[in-house]
This record gives sequence, structure tokens and C-alpha cells, in this order.
Amino acid sequence: MKHKNNMKPDKFLEAAIEEARKGYAEGGIPIGSVIMHNNKIIGRGHNRRVQNGSAILHGEMDALENAGRQPASVYQECVLYTTLSPCSMCSGTILLYGIPKVIIAENKTFMGEEELLTSRGVDVTVLENQECIDLMNQFIAEKPELWNEDIGE
Amino acid sequence: MKHKNNMKPDKFLEAAIEEARKGYAEGGIPIGSVIMHNNKIIGRGHNRRVQNGSAILHGEMDALENAGRQPASVYQECVLYTTLSPCSMCSGTILLYGIPKVIIAENKTFMGEEELLTSRGVDVTVLENQECIDLMNQFIAEKPELWNEDIGE
Repeated sequence: MKHKNNMKPDKFLEAAIEEARKGYAEGGIPIGSVIMHNNKIIGRGHNRRVQNGSAILHGEMDALENAGRQPASVYQECVLYTTLSPCSMCSGTILLYGIPKVIIAENKTFMGEEELLTSRGVDVTVLENQECIDLMNQFIAEKPELWNEDIGE
Repeated sequence: MKHKNNMKPDKFLEAAIEEARKGYAEGGIPIGSVIMHNNKIIGRGHNRRVQNGSAILHGEMDALENAGRQPASVYQECVLYTTLSPCSMCSGTILLYGIPKVIIAENKTFMGEEELLTSRGVDVTVLENQECIDLMNQFIAEKPELWNEDIGE
């Protein structure tokens, strides 16, 4: 996988970060995601464990759900942006739908299944965006039990 | 992984099969799932792609969502029953939450990520239940495009 440290976020990653901030403002887990197809956002969302009492709506899952039912041909041309390294659930979903490219804001506060994704041919880029690292560190310090619940620990 | 062909389904697999039948009766994809903890069903559900316009509510995901937010300590004592071999999304979710045991009614009509689950220490049993094989074959013959959409093909 590629590392591009301190790269300025593009408008899609900016939108994912906005979603993360929105989640934090709602008292939730500050992880956001955006699905881009043909240079347009077709779905965006953020973690809704607290807001919806959900065990499955991680940021990436919420974005995919909000994109609605799509044919394989669309997913296969999408880029998924996420503010945090995708866990095994979200990575498995990326593999199910054959999403070829994933841009990850950071993997310092949580390391997901990047190796699995890469081993299956997904193009993974990690940016180590400092704003996202700081937001997650702040959240984890404030609500460690909630964070552990979200990652099954 | 273990194969126990033609084993009579226990009451938990029966409940998952009931869910699959319910999904079929609703015009949906006939896959059902149940989460068992301490010999009780704590969540059950079926694929809701058609019913909810959902891209993420496979049977296993619906059952997990219906089980609500649970601590890791509960998931780690659960058995997940599913009428069909779990795809990479559902398998990734099993891994996220550390569910140690998965009972699969059949993998003849679709082979999911059983090898990944086994390689990560999950106890996987496949029963090759004929009723589930017949129901899926009937559904795939009737609605092949819907089925392909569900598995990202």
C-alpha cells in the first residue's frame, strides 16, 4: 500500500472528514466515509453506533447504505474514502462489491485489514492526516469503552 | 472446516431457515440467520436488499443489527447460524466481533469466505441442508440479476 504523508485532503476526503466531525458533534464515534463514482459523491455517512443503536453502521457501511442498491459495474468504478483504516467488516464489504480503490485518512489510531485488501488487489492509500489522528485520539481518550465496543474489544 | 451432511437442523438452524422462507415470501433474497447466545436467540433476521432497498442487510447483518449493541464478551460466546455460506462482508463482521462459531446450512449455491474464517480460528461447520440448497437454486433460477447484485457480480 502507498503512504502519502501530510498530503492535503482532496474534496472527497474533506467530505469524509466533515462526516466524522458531524458524528463527533452528535456524541457518536467520529469516523466518516464517502463513496465516489465518476468524480461525484454517490453516498456519504458516518458511524451510527450511538445515534441509531447500530452494531453494523460503521462510517463506510453507512456511506454504502446511503448510496443505495448499485450494480456491480458501478462499485467496480468507485473510490471509497474513509477517515480511519477499515475494520474487517468494512474491508469485507469493499471486497464483496469489488471496490478497487480505498483512500484512508489514517491508520495510526487503528489498523484495519489493509493487508487483506492489498492481497486481494485493492489499491490502498494511507495519508496519515493529522486532523483525523487528533480527532480519533481525542475521542478514544474521552470514551474508551465506546471505542472498544465498536471494534469488538 | 467440518462437513456434517444431511444432519437434521437444530432449533436454531430451523429459525434461520424460517427467516429465509420469510424473505422469499416477501419477494426478497431467501437467506436467513440467527445469533445464539447461551442457548437463546438474541438476534434473527433475513436479507433485506429488496424489502429495505439495502446494500448491506444480508441475512447475517440483519440478525446482528437486530441483536443490538453487544459487548465483545457476548459476541465471543455466540454461535452464528446462517442458511448460506457467508460472503466477505458477513465473514468480516464475524471476525470484527470475534464470533467463534458459525453453522452454515449450505455452500453448494455460493461459496463465501469459509477459508478466511477458518484461517482466523473460527469454528466453521457446513451441513449441506437440502431444503436450503433447493430454496436458493429456485430463487437464483427465478431472479438471477437480483442474486448477482447481492453478491457484487
